[in-house]
Amino acid sequence: MPPPNSPLFPPAAMSTPTYRIAPSILSADFARLGEEVRRVTEAGADWIHFDVMDNHYVPNLTVGPLVCEAIRPHVTAPIDVHLMVRPVDRIIPDFAKAGANIITFHPEASEHVDRSLALIRDNGCQAGLVFNPATPLHHLDHVMDRLDVILLMSVNPGFGGQSFIPETLNKLRAVRQRIDAYTERTGRKILLEVDGGVKVDNIAEIAAAGADTFVAGSAVFGKPDADGGYRGIIAALRGELAKAGQ
Amino acid sequence: MPPPNSPLFPPAAMSTPTYRIAPSILSADFARLGEEVRRVTEAGADWIHFDVMDNHYVPNLTVGPLVCEAIRPHVTAPIDVHLMVRPVDRIIPDFAKAGANIITFHPEASEHVDRSLALIRDNGCQAGLVFNPATPLHHLDHVMDRLDVILLMSVNPGFGGQSFIPETLNKLRAVRQRIDAYTERTGRKILLEVDGGVKVDNIAEIAAAGADTFVAGSAVFGKPDADGGYRGIIAALRGELAKAGQ
Amino acid sequence: MPPPNSPLFPPAAMSTPTYRIAPSILSADFARLGEEVRRVTEAGADWIHFDVMDNHYVPNLTVGPLVCEAIRPHVTAPIDVHLMVRPVDRIIPDFAKAGANIITFHPEASEHVDRSLALIRDNGCQAGLVFNPATPLHHLDHVMDRLDVILLMSVNPGFGGQSFIPETLNKLRAVRQRIDAYTERTGRKILLEVDGGVKVDNIAEIAAAGADTFVAGSAVFGKPDADGGYRGIIAALRGELAKAGQ
Amino acid sequence: MPPPNSPLFPPAAMSTPTYRIAPSILSADFARLGEEVRRVTEAGADWIHFDVMDNHYVPNLTVGPLVCEAIRPHVTAPIDVHLMVRPVDRIIPDFAKAGANIITFHPEASEHVDRSLALIRDNGCQAGLVFNPATPLHHLDHVMDRLDVILLMSVNPGFGGQSFIPETLNKLRAVRQRIDAYTERTGRKILLEVDGGVKVDNIAEIAAAGADTFVAGSAVFGKPDADGGYRGIIAALRGELAKAGQ
Amino acid sequence: MPPPNSPLFPPAAMSTPTYRIAPSILSADFARLGEEVRRVTEAGADWIHFDVMDNHYVPNLTVGPLVCEAIRPHVTAPIDVHLMVRPVDRIIPDFAKAGANIITFHPEASEHVDRSLALIRDNGCQAGLVFNPATPLHHLDHVMDRLDVILLMSVNPGFGGQSFIPETLNKLRAVRQRIDAYTERTGRKILLEVDGGVKVDNIAEIAAAGADTFVAGSAVFGKPDADGGYRGIIAALRGELAKAGQ
Amino acid sequence: MPPPNSPLFPPAAMSTPTYRIAPSILSADFARLGEEVRRVTEAGADWIHFDVMDNHYVPNLTVGPLVCEAIRPHVTAPIDVHLMVRPVDRIIPDFAKAGANIITFHPEASEHVDRSLALIRDNGCQAGLVFNPATPLHHLDHVMDRLDVILLMSVNPGFGGQSFIPETLNKLRAVRQRIDAYTERTGRKILLEVDGGVKVDNIAEIAAAGADTFVAGSAVFGKPDADGGYRGIIAALRGELAKAGQ
Repeated sequence: MPPPNSPLFPPAAMSTPTYRIAPSILSADFARLGEEVRRVTEAGADWIHFDVMDNHYVPNLTVGPLVCEAIRPHVTAPIDVHLMVRPVDRIIPDFAKAGANIITFHPEASEHVDRSLALIRDNGCQAGLVFNPATPLHHLDHVMDRLDVILLMSVNPGFGGQSFIPETLNKLRAVRQRIDAYTERTGRKILLEVDGGVKVDNIAEIAAAGADTFVAGSAVFGKPDADGGYRGIIAALRGELAKAGQ
Repeated sequence: MPPPNSPLFPPAAMSTPTYRIAPSILSADFARLGEEVRRVTEAGADWIHFDVMDNHYVPNLTVGPLVCEAIRPHVTAPIDVHLMVRPVDRIIPDFAKAGANIITFHPEASEHVDRSLALIRDNGCQAGLVFNPATPLHHLDHVMDRLDVILLMSVNPGFGGQSFIPETLNKLRAVRQRIDAYTERTGRKILLEVDGGVKVDNIAEIAAAGADTFVAGSAVFGKPDADGGYRGIIAALRGELAKAGQ
Repeated sequence: MPPPNSPLFPPAAMSTPTYRIAPSILSADFARLGEEVRRVTEAGADWIHFDVMDNHYVPNLTVGPLVCEAIRPHVTAPIDVHLMVRPVDRIIPDFAKAGANIITFHPEASEHVDRSLALIRDNGCQAGLVFNPATPLHHLDHVMDRLDVILLMSVNPGFGGQSFIPETLNKLRAVRQRIDAYTERTGRKILLEVDGGVKVDNIAEIAAAGADTFVAGSAVFGKPDADGGYRGIIAALRGELAKAGQ
Repeated sequence: MPPPNSPLFPPAAMSTPTYRIAPSILSADFARLGEEVRRVTEAGADWIHFDVMDNHYVPNLTVGPLVCEAIRPHVTAPIDVHLMVRPVDRIIPDFAKAGANIITFHPEASEHVDRSLALIRDNGCQAGLVFNPATPLHHLDHVMDRLDVILLMSVNPGFGGQSFIPETLNKLRAVRQRIDAYTERTGRKILLEVDGGVKVDNIAEIAAAGADTFVAGSAVFGKPDADGGYRGIIAALRGELAKAGQ
Repeated sequence: MPPPNSPLFPPAAMSTPTYRIAPSILSADFARLGEEVRRVTEAGADWIHFDVMDNHYVPNLTVGPLVCEAIRPHVTAPIDVHLMVRPVDRIIPDFAKAGANIITFHPEASEHVDRSLALIRDNGCQAGLVFNPATPLHHLDHVMDRLDVILLMSVNPGFGGQSFIPETLNKLRAVRQRIDAYTERTGRKILLEVDGGVKVDNIAEIAAAGADTFVAGSAVFGKPDADGGYRGIIAALRGELAKAGQ
Repeated sequence: MPPPNSPLFPPAAMSTPTYRIAPSILSADFARLGEEVRRVTEAGADWIHFDVMDNHYVPNLTVGPLVCEAIRPHVTAPIDVHLMVRPVDRIIPDFAKAGANIITFHPEASEHVDRSLALIRDNGCQAGLVFNPATPLHHLDHVMDRLDVILLMSVNPGFGGQSFIPETLNKLRAVRQRIDAYTERTGRKILLEVDGGVKVDNIAEIAAAGADTFVAGSAVFGKPDADGGYRGIIAALRGELAKAGQ
C-alpha cells in the first residue's frame, strides 16, 4: 500500500495550481542568491530548483548543502534539489537538514535505488527519480510507490548550450500514461517535471505532452530583473500554460 | 631556472604586508556572498579563501566555478582557491576563467602533480600544494620551482568541529626552513599558508613557527558583522601578528 | 539450445521438494558456524544461504571464500552463495574451489553479465542473477539460457532493520510468468528465490506469488536453538508452504 | 526530426552493397598493420573494424588513436571504431581526428549516452551503440534518432576463445523489427552490425536474422594471406550472404 | 602534547610482557572460530590478530565486523584488527562496536590519515598504521602522537605463499630508532608489530631488529592443536624471544 | 640477500656498452612497426622502449600486449615496456608472454609495489620503477633489491609538447648516489634510465648527471629515415655520450 502524499503536496494542493514553474538557480546571480530566490518567488515562481553537481556524475561542480541552508530563510516556496552526484546516499541527510523539500536523483547514480528513495522519505522530504535523455523508463517499474516526482531531462545535465531534445515529448507522453494509470489504481498523485530548454515558445507543447512542473533555466534568471523582468517572464510562461491547459 | 614571480605577487609586494589574512567563505553567508566578501576586504582582509569540496576527495560538497565567477566583480583582492577535489586537472581552467588568482590542490589528488602545477601557471594563476595534517613533506622535493604557495592544513579538511593540530607547528618550522633555503638559493619567494583553527589566541604562535598567510575560518565570518565585527576581528588578528613580527 | 540442468538439480529433483528453505548465515553464530549450519540442515533446511558483502557494492563486509571452505565439510546441503560484491569475476573461482554449489550476483555489478554467468558454470556451479527491489527485470531478456536461479531481493541488501517490500509480490508474479513460459518452451527449469523479511506469517503469500525458494534470515538463526528451535521454525515455515501449495 | 544520413552513408549507398564485411584488426599482424588493412580492403572488405580496449571496461588493452591515425592513409574504406573503454567522451575527439568514420560505444560505459552520441556526430563521425550479449535493448528506446549503427556483440568482448552465442539470433530479430519500424516512420536507415564468432558456416543464418554488417574476426585476418587467402575468405562470406539475401 | 596511553596498554603494562604473540585468525578453523581463539589464548597467545580484507585493497575477502562481534565473548585478550580495506572510515565504528581493541590501517587507504586515526581513538580503540613492504616510512613523520602501534608487513598482504622479506629487518631497525627517540622525548610508548612469515627459526632475529609484537600466521593456527599443539608452538616462540631478549 | 642480475644484463654486460639508447615507439610509424623497430636497432639502438597508456593513469591510450607480441620477432634487442596503466598486476603476465624483457611501472599505480615487482621477476622479466617529475624518491627506500632499472620521467607522461624539465638533473644525481652506494654494498647494478625531451643538445649533460639509459622519443623516430636518418641521429647521440663519458 503506497504511503499517502505528504502535507507538502496534499492531493488537493497538488492540482492547485495545475502547473508549477521552478526557476533553476544555475542562471541566478550567486553573489546575492538569497535576494534572487526571494524575488523570483515574489514574481510568481512556485518552486526553487536547486542543481547540485559534483564534478563526477557530471563534469561540473556547482553548490552543496551549505548554499541550500543559506537560502532557506529567504523563501517559503519548496526547494527542489536535483542531485547530479554519485553516490547519493551520504549527501541526502545533509540536504534534508539544509531545508530541501524535494530531493531527486538519477537511478544510475545509486546502487540501491529503493533504499535511496526510502532514505529521502525517512528524512522528511519528497522523493523523485531523474531520467537522462537516453535513460529508459524501466527504472520506474518497481518504485512508483516510492515516488512523488518524476523528472525528465530534456537536455544532458552538466553540459552548456543545449536545446530541448524533441524526443522528450514522446517520453513525457509515455510517463504521463504510467502516472495516470498509477493514480487511477492507487489514488496517489505523482508530479511530472521537465528540465532543459523550456522556453515561452515551447512550454505549451511540453505541457500538452504531459508535464506539469517546469524547470525554467536561463529563461527566468538569465534575464536581467529590471522592469519586472522575472514577473514578466513568469507571466508569459503561465500565459502559455493557460492556453495549453484548455 | 625557476620562473620569476608573477605580477600578482612581485617580490617587493610579497613582503608588504608581511602577513596576509585570508577569510574563508565557508563561514560566510552564502545567501549574500558578494556583499560578504566585499565587506570583509573593506574590513582589511588581504585575500578571499575559496574552499572547493566535491564530496569525493572530502565528504562534503561546497561551491564551484560559477560561485567564484559571481563574487569576482565584488572584490579586487586575490581569490585563493583551495581545491579539495580529485582529480584536479579538468576544473583548473574553469576556475582560472572564473577569476581565481591562486589555485592550490592536494598532491594525493593528482597523478601528475608537476603537470597540474604547470596547468595552473599556464592558465595565468599562482600555484600551490596543500598538505593534509598527516601528509609528509617529501612531495615538495622536486617541485619547489613550480610553487608560489605552500598551504598546510592544521585540521582535516572537510570535517567540522576540529581544533588546531599542535603538530602543525613542527611542520610549519620544517617548511619554513625549506622555503628560506630555497629563496636563499634562487631569490624566489614562496608563501607559507596555514588553514584550520587559526584564532586570535594562537595566530602569534603560528606566525612564529613560520606561517605568513592565515586562513581565518569561523574566526572572521563566523561572527555577526555588527558594530564593525569583521573590522574588529581582523584588527585583533593583525594586532597579534604585529607582536609576533617583532 | 540451453544446457540441460546439472546433476545438482536434475529436472526431477527440482520439484522434490516443491519448496526450498535456505537459512542465511547472517543471523547465525559466527563463532561456531560449522555447528550452526549442520544443526540447521539436520532441522530440515534445504540450502545454506551464504551472504558475501564487500563494503563496496553494499556498505557492509561479511565473509569470504575461506569461511565457505570451512563450513563445507559440515553440510551436504547445497551452499548458495549470494555475491553482494563488485566486480564479481575474480572471486567466482575462489568460491567454486571453496565448495559453493550455487553462485548468484547482481547484474549491475558485472560489466559482462553473460561472461560472469558462463564463468560460474565453467567452474562447476549453478548460476543466478539477483535483483535489488528497484532493479527492472529486463536484465533477464537475453540470459534465461544461462540461469539456474533468479533471486529477488525483498529488502535492500546490506542495510539492517527492513521489512518485506510489498511490491516484491508483483515482481515475483512477473518473474514466475517469464520462467513458466521459458520452461514451457525449453523444458528447462529455473528456480525463483526470494530474500528479505520472509516470516511464518507471510511465506504462504510469497509462495502464492510464485517463489519456490526462501531465504530465511533472522527467522531461523535469529532464534535461540533450544527446545528444537530451528526444527520448530522450519516446520512452521513448511507448514505454511504446505497450505500455499494446495 | 532526425538528422538526414551523412554523406558517408547516403540512403542510396547504404543498400549498396546490401551487406558489409568488416574485418577486425584484432587478428591482423600488428607489425605491418598498414599493409594488412590495405590488402584486406583490396580483397573486398567494406570496412575496417578497429577494436579499442582500455584494460578497464574489458580486461585487455589493444590500440588507441595513434594506431588509427597511422593506418588512415592506407585505406579509403570506413574505419569503424568500437570503443571498449570507459568513460568514452574524452577519447572520442581523438579518434575523430585520427580518421575514424564510425564510432560506437557501450551504453553502460557512458553516464550521458545521448551526449556521447551527439559528441560523435559533432566530431563528424557516424555514431552507434554496442550491446553486450546480456545487455537489454531498452537502451535503444529514446536514442534511435541519434544512431547510424547498432552493434550486437555475439560473444563477450575482451575475452578470447568464444563461439557465437545462439541467443544473438533472437536479439538480432528484435532489433531488426525496431529498425524497420523506425525506417518506415522516418525514412532514415540504421545499420545492424554483429561482432563475434561470425564464420562462413553461420553468416547466412545471421544475415537471415537481420544483420547487414558483419565483423569478421579471426575468420579473415586469422588466415595466412597466401594464395589469395583474404580474397578467398571474403568471397566465401559473400557467397553465403548472396544465398541469404535471396 | 600527545595523549597518555589508554588503560589497555598503560605504560607499565606495555613492557609486561616484553613481547606479544598475536596469532592470526587467517589460519584458524573458521567453522569453530570461537573455540579456536579461546584455546589459543589459553595456550598463551597475547592478542588475537584479525585480518580484514575487502577484495579491493587486496585481492581477497575474509571477514568483517559480524565475525569480530561473534568471537568477542570467547576471549578477554585484545582483538587487533588489521584493516586491508579502502576506504577505512566507514568501517571503523563498526569494528569498535564489534569489540575491537586495536585498529590499524594502511596510510595509502585513507585520504585523511590523521582523521582516520582520530576516528579510531574517538571510538575507544588503540590506533595504528600498517606499512606494506615497499611503503616508505615518511608516513610516520607527522602522526607519531596519534599512534599506539606501528605494524610492518614482512610479506605482501592478501597474497598467499610468501616468505619473510629480509629487507624488513632494516625497516624494523629504522622504526625502532624513531620510536625510541619519540619515547625518549615524550615518555609515550608505541608498539612495533610485524606480520608475515614469522616462525620459530626467525623470531629471535626479528625481535633483535626491534619488533616487540609478532603476528604468527600459519605458524600457530596452521598446526593441528593436538597434544598441546598451540601451547607447544607458542612456548617455542617465547623460548626464542627469551633468548633474543637477553 | 638480493638476487644476482639475470642473464639479460649480467654484471659484465651491464657496462658494455656504458650507455643504452632506447628509441620510443610513440614516434614510430604504427602502420609498419615491425620494420621500424628492426631498422632502428640495425641503426644502432640498444633497446626498444614500448609506451603503454590506458587512458586512466594517463589521458591517452596507446598499445598493448598484442602489439608487443607482433614486433617481438622483428628484433633481438630488449623490449623495455613502460606501463602507464593502473592497476598493473593483471597486465604484467600478458606482457611477459608477449616478449617483454623489462617491465617498469609507477609506484602510485600499484597498491602492492613489492608484490608487483616480484610478479615481474617471477614472469622472467627485469623490473623497474618509474618516477613522475614530482614523485619523491622515497619509494626507493625498501625495494632496491627488487630493481633492475630506475626510470625518471623528465616530462609528464601522457601529455604532448613538453621539454626536458631541468629539475630532473638534480633528481638524477640523487638517484645516481643511491645506486652507487647500493652497488658498492651489494655488488649488484641497477640501470638509471631517463625519458622525455632527450635530444642531441642535452644528452651529454643528462649523462653527466648520472643517467646511463636514454629514451629517445621524437628525436629518433620523429625524423624521416631517409639517407640514414636513424643511423645519423643515433650516431649523433652516441657522439655526445662519448664526450660525456670522458
